[in-house]
Amino acid sequence: MLKDHLQNLAERLRLQKLDAIVLGPSPDLQYLAGLSLFDDERFKGLVVLSDGRMFSIVPRLYREQMETVLGPECPECLWDDSEGFLEKVTAVWKDFGLQGKVVAVNDGIRAVDLIDLERSVPGTRFVNGHPVVEAMRLVKSPEEMELLRKAARIADEAFTALLPFIRPGVREGEVARKLEDLLVEKGADGLSFTTIVASGPNGSNPHYMGSGRVLSEGDPVVIDFGCTYRGYCSDTTRTVFVGRASEEDRAIYRVVLEANLAGEAAVRAGATAQDVDRATRSVIEKAGYGEYFINRTGHGIGVAVHEAPYIMEGNLQELGKGMAFSVEPGIYIPGRLGIRIEDIVLVTDKGGEPLSAFPKDLAIV
Amino acid sequence: MLKDHLQNLAERLRLQKLDAIVLGPSPDLQYLAGLSLFDDERFKGLVVLSDGRMFSIVPRLYREQMETVLGPECPECLWDDSEGFLEKVTAVWKDFGLQGKVVAVNDGIRAVDLIDLERSVPGTRFVNGHPVVEAMRLVKSPEEMELLRKAARIADEAFTALLPFIRPGVREGEVARKLEDLLVEKGADGLSFTTIVASGPNGSNPHYMGSGRVLSEGDPVVIDFGCTYRGYCSDTTRTVFVGRASEEDRAIYRVVLEANLAGEAAVRAGATAQDVDRATRSVIEKAGYGEYFINRTGHGIGVAVHEAPYIMEGNLQELGKGMAFSVEPGIYIPGRLGIRIEDIVLVTDKGGEPLSAFPKDLAIV
Repeated sequence: MLKDHLQNLAERLRLQKLDAIVLGPSPDLQYLAGLSLFDDERFKGLVVLSDGRMFSIVPRLYREQMETVLGPECPECLWDDSEGFLEKVTAVWKDFGLQGKVVAVNDGIRAVDLIDLERSVPGTRFVNGHPVVEAMRLVKSPEEMELLRKAARIADEAFTALLPFIRPGVREGEVARKLEDLLVEKGADGLSFTTIVASGPNGSNPHYMGSGRVLSEGDPVVIDFGCTYRGYCSDTTRTVFVGRASEEDRAIYRVVLEANLAGEAAVRAGATAQDVDRATRSVIEKAGYGEYFINRTGHGIGVAVHEAPYIMEGNLQELGKGMAFSVEPGIYIPGRLGIRIEDIVLVTDKGGEPLSAFPKDLAIV
Repeated sequence: MLKDHLQNLAERLRLQKLDAIVLGPSPDLQYLAGLSLFDDERFKGLVVLSDGRMFSIVPRLYREQMETVLGPECPECLWDDSEGFLEKVTAVWKDFGLQGKVVAVNDGIRAVDLIDLERSVPGTRFVNGHPVVEAMRLVKSPEEMELLRKAARIADEAFTALLPFIRPGVREGEVARKLEDLLVEKGADGLSFTTIVASGPNGSNPHYMGSGRVLSEGDPVVIDFGCTYRGYCSDTTRTVFVGRASEEDRAIYRVVLEANLAGEAAVRAGATAQDVDRATRSVIEKAGYGEYFINRTGHGIGVAVHEAPYIMEGNLQELGKGMAFSVEPGIYIPGRLGIRIEDIVLVTDKGGEPLSAFPKDLAIV
């Protein structure tokens, strides 16, 4: 399968008149070559040429891992910490005839490294190659769909087990930590992103990164979490209330839930990403909260937790069977609260299949 | 303090004839502006001009957080998910007169975004600005030194509490998870990197990312872990043995320990980074294991877990009071084992001050 992916990639490069692509540590590299690399500052990855050849760029301390995964037949551009990557990469660039060519880079390459590389291989024209591999990953195979379902089931089980733990007096960070332990306990291989537990007014920041607030009676708590299972991601959000919910908060919750359900109902092969965004947004706008829905409705998911298709206004991408993405409308009122409800939805013959089974009715814990 | 940092940065830009720097999500941004951003694909950050002006690039869903941290006086280039960043950034580029200028980028910017940006603001010359902020962070203030010491103490306490948990039958991932829990319990704000627990033959990969192997009697287990305390990182490695250690493994351990001690003894103001690398490497080479010490001796540490000074051959950077870096020699024999012993060492008036107090004598647990 991985060999097929790499041949498919070379073909796409030819069609797009790209001579090669440099793939740094990224979900792309995991998808194409089964290679997950530690994220440090050392320049490394795989270069795939449009003629089907390839070579790896290997800091010595990653040699054993990269050789094991890529196989002994993949030529190596090996460099030592004390020498840096530039001289060695310049040499391999010549060996493979890449001077003066059009070379794409993916999203695993840092701008500072590209700038240095550009100076070392003048005449090479670098272009944004992110869409090339993203297009390959857009439609999931039946095996990939099963892995996404399994990741979502693990998330459901972990969240169910978490509920008794959410109570007044507990810190946000403790809830996050407990949930992460439960994900691993239920079979996850790892996390797809840092767990978000945002209580009370902290919920108005969709990507809240704090952990210190203590939960108290009446708080809405936004819990956004995801795990990986054999490389595939889950991503779920539920907002629960501690002890009680005010009438006003209940009303806001109902709007978000209605928006979530409307978005999921709009999912079908042939609809556009924009259609789904409009379905959720119109509910929230009609209820008078339009200005507080400050982001897109959703994002695709697979080996990356954010990938195509992006569910937003202006995206006329037609949805097709095998695409998977989040539907996650929210209302975020600064200084007051956030409410978000998110499922991953898979496009099937029958419409949208939400992968999370955990109930969405307002829950008081 | 943060205002001072930003003024200092503007001055450095002037001295280096740079007109501005684009700072993406990174330790730099945390250091300069106290801003920690969620790591997603949305282009965001702070642009600082050499004349002292600045503006932020803000996806709408990060507005509340970025405005709170940067203050209402910092002009915003605000963009919505549905429109993307390019048009808005091109406009602000003109407003601030950045066309045709020399603009640095830091290591928080992705190459794919730089490529898109270059096409939108033709005539701007982008350069690698990583060394500019790195140089500012090189020498730690007394307050920063205290935070590094505190982070190391938390790590010591957590590791001490972990020892009873390491035994035959436990999985690598369980040990890692337990250690992470203990770090938080002992007062850490978070992790400085993903904990490495590499047992038996897995230890030969210095940045092993697996978690599935079950510990068994006689295994050496490399445990490399770090936490953050108020933004500052710890980084410690100890290699312990499960139940017993073979004579050969003991001999290798002794070499690595001797190398570690020799490296730490070589630390003093006025020595070079290369001197410290040679001190550890010569011990390992003399013992006949030179080919198995496959990386540099160490890396600087502060708000980033890897930063200047890099302790390696060829780096003639003179060490000075207030610098902090790891001394982490290792022997990595593919298919067999890895042994690494790592402390963070602070350069003081009296030489090197190792920040980890946890014993380094061979431990059988």
